Amino acid sequence: MDTFELDIDSVIEIVKRRGARSVGLQFPEGLKRRAKVVAGSIEKTTGAAVFISGNPCFGACDVDLQLGNMVDIMFHFGHSGMGEHGNVIFMEARSDADPVPAVEKALEFLDAHRIGIITTVQHAHKLDTVRSFLEDKGKVCVTGSGGPRVKYPGQVLGCSFEAARIDCDELLYIGSGLFHPLGAALATGKKVVAADPLTLRAGVVGTDKLVKQRSAVIARAMDAKSIGIVVSTKAGQQRMALAEELKRMVGKHNKEAAIIVMDLVTPEQLLNFKFDAFVNTACPRIAIDDAGRFHAPMLSPKELEIVLGEREWNITFDEIADTVEGIDKK
Amino acid sequence: MDTFELDIDSVIEIVKRRGARSVGLQFPEGLKRRAKVVAGSIEKTTGAAVFISGNPCFGACDVDLQLGNMVDIMFHFGHSGMGEHGNVIFMEARSDADPVPAVEKALEFLDAHRIGIITTVQHAHKLDTVRSFLEDKGKVCVTGSGGPRVKYPGQVLGCSFEAARIDCDELLYIGSGLFHPLGAALATGKKVVAADPLTLRAGVVGTDKLVKQRSAVIARAMDAKSIGIVVSTKAGQQRMALAEELKRMVGKHNKEAAIIVMDLVTPEQLLNFKFDAFVNTACPRIAIDDAGRFHAPMLSPKELEIVLGEREWNITFDEIADTVEGIDKK
Repeated sequence: MDTFELDIDSVIEIVKRRGARSVGLQFPEGLKRRAKVVAGSIEKTTGAAVFISGNPCFGACDVDLQLGNMVDIMFHFGHSGMGEHGNVIFMEARSDADPVPAVEKALEFLDAHRIGIITTVQHAHKLDTVRSFLEDKGKVCVTGSGGPRVKYPGQVLGCSFEAARIDCDELLYIGSGLFHPLGAALATGKKVVAADPLTLRAGVVGTDKLVKQRSAVIARAMDAKSIGIVVSTKAGQQRMALAEELKRMVGKHNKEAAIIVMDLVTPEQLLNFKFDAFVNTACPRIAIDDAGRFHAPMLSPKELEIVLGEREWNITFDEIADTVEGIDKK
Repeated sequence: MDTFELDIDSVIEIVKRRGARSVGLQFPEGLKRRAKVVAGSIEKTTGAAVFISGNPCFGACDVDLQLGNMVDIMFHFGHSGMGEHGNVIFMEARSDADPVPAVEKALEFLDAHRIGIITTVQHAHKLDTVRSFLEDKGKVCVTGSGGPRVKYPGQVLGCSFEAARIDCDELLYIGSGLFHPLGAALATGKKVVAADPLTLRAGVVGTDKLVKQRSAVIARAMDAKSIGIVVSTKAGQQRMALAEELKRMVGKHNKEAAIIVMDLVTPEQLLNFKFDAFVNTACPRIAIDDAGRFHAPMLSPKELEIVLGEREWNITFDEIADTVEGIDKK
């Protein structure tokens, strides 16, 4: 059974050293079950008043700044840092799972010589182990730097596959879930093999089903006369300039557009709005993960451009490039 | 079919008069379907850029201050004002439904002479009509002022039944739903007759079922060793002082307690937290309306006191008194 290590000793040390009297704790959904024990142990050892964030949290883009403003110091667990937020300290959660057994299974799917390795923050500290193992098997391993949103070489996010854009023949993804390897495959056009250190499963990631799904969403949006453009107020997800650019673009095509500003973007929360289609400028995963649950087509910004005839029909995931907010035209 | 009047002409007039270049619009759930048309008409007539709040909105306690801070002026539709929020203008939605047919049906349930009338903001402008009708039938009608959270005589909220605490023999509620009349019945111990201008139904409100439900929740929480104390950051719902008082009280009884700070309080969002019971200091409706959907007992602050043996077992709804934040001990 895999566990994620939370470095509570360091947290207590920092609280004591800074003399913090009030402490905020933010956990992603999968770690919230540990909040009670962590809060209790900080209170007992430091005497500080602890407040737990109850808001949804899916990434480092999603820092609870309201709680942060209420406390002397806030710890955001589970993600590597993204940007500076005053008193917020990012505490990564590292998996203690050994990646080698899964990578060993992945070997049979790796045909090429030069392998680009990508992973998520939970396994980033194990990449050297993976590299040694693969090099022993005669492979050459490379990792990309990943750009401004990530901290570690090879690290990808649901909104950034920059680390996958490297000089290699095939990509190997170390981690759980299909979103990241699918995004990397679409972003690079390369074969991606996924190896999951938790389930010990490995295999080639197929993009056909996803491309068909996204194509269907685009097709359903073709007749839309009104577009709701969704902007999140989350610190790492707000792309208002992009939204305003999209709104002008929709207007030029004689369709109606309005900008909807919200914190968490959910199918339930958009249900009451009467738009023929939506476009999501917040976390790129939302349009993909919840695709079947929206009452109207939910497009990515690039998919909206396809609908409007402003871009060639070519399915890739939306990515958030911190350096350039706005639309990169092909 | 009932419709709610939104005074868009006044909105446009205000935007023009103030020369606002950016306008925020916030609608409660039931009015969000009209957001697109309202936004379009403001943009066309004033040239201002309009931004719609997509966040959940259930009351005047729930002003989208983040959007408010992004725009020159923000209109909050559907609720009467609660407190001052800089550039936020409250635009009530008034029902054009005639209350008299429902009140006529309610007559057979009204045994007493002196009737206290309570209602929600949507029907507050029709209370004079109701009063005339009932006085023609030989009744005496009274209304209470309602306290600092409401604007109109006789107006009740899901968190304030102050207007029901008046010198009368029976109460007549004009409006939809059972929450408000149930709360008034529990708050006053008086018979409450509900008359719904939309469905034209009328009848006496029975509290037995609700009292049993709440008693069952209290009973289930009796063995709880850990209590999650929920605080909302919503402007009109934050009761941190009460939460801290409850935390101390729980501590005295040798149980664990932690404060969970969040925006919208939902069963889904608390699911990952491993507490034996929760207490809700945010909108009082949450514990009642969603009672069956929480994975652990969700108590009101008064119900927690019952669980701890600090209060007599007597079911009433939680109310938010703006004047005194904290616990009023019986």
